[in-house]
Amino acid sequence: MRVKRAETVPAEPVQGSPGAAIRWLWTQKDGAPSFSLRVIEVQPGASTPHHAHPYEHEVYVLSGRARLMEGERAHALEPGDTALVMPDETHQFVNAGPDVLRFVCVIPLKRNAAS
Amino acid sequence: MRVKRAETVPAEPVQGSPGAAIRWLWTQKDGAPSFSLRVIEVQPGASTPHHAHPYEHEVYVLSGRARLMEGERAHALEPGDTALVMPDETHQFVNAGPDVLRFVCVIPLKRNAAS
Repeated sequence: MRVKRAETVPAEPVQGSPGAAIRWLWTQKDGAPSFSLRVIEVQPGASTPHHAHPYEHEVYVLSGRARLMEGERAHALEPGDTALVMPDETHQFVNAGPDVLRFVCVIPLKRNAAS
Repeated sequence: MRVKRAETVPAEPVQGSPGAAIRWLWTQKDGAPSFSLRVIEVQPGASTPHHAHPYEHEVYVLSGRARLMEGERAHALEPGDTALVMPDETHQFVNAGPDVLRFVCVIPLKRNAAS
């Protein structure tokens, strides 16, 4: 069993997305058997990549406001909202407010891309 | 892609643990491919079962205060803290404060028990 404060985990920049960073809370390196728990932080005016990958996201919004883009369609998200992004769905998290957007984002260990 | 407010998902009582409830946000029924995202809520004075099971938990505390019991050892948790409970580790989440304890808790779909 391991316990830590999320904010003690370094926020690693997301390549190609200035203002977006990921804290990898639990990964295969920690012995996590099947999925990784991350907190993603997006500064005001910034966004995560507009992309797709062959694995899912399960998301829970902690603070701030987001537009979750599903292709051209936007879903408004606020704290307490949750999303399931299925494998191969094109998606993007856009910070839609004046504060930092923070959300939990879980991915399986068996994946073919880095974020 | 699916989006919803966590609080619209019914809080199901945890059998044998009065004051503890689980909101199953995304599960196999929703098409989740490999893990389930839940929010667990524990009322003041209550706790989750003191148990072990052959799959892991990855946890992020949203609100309230917890004692996460590792056998007889207690880890104090507050909002922004995160925990990795490994398969077969005996554990229990005790509400250690005056407010409702709420935390995100992720489990793999391939598991042998219910919570």
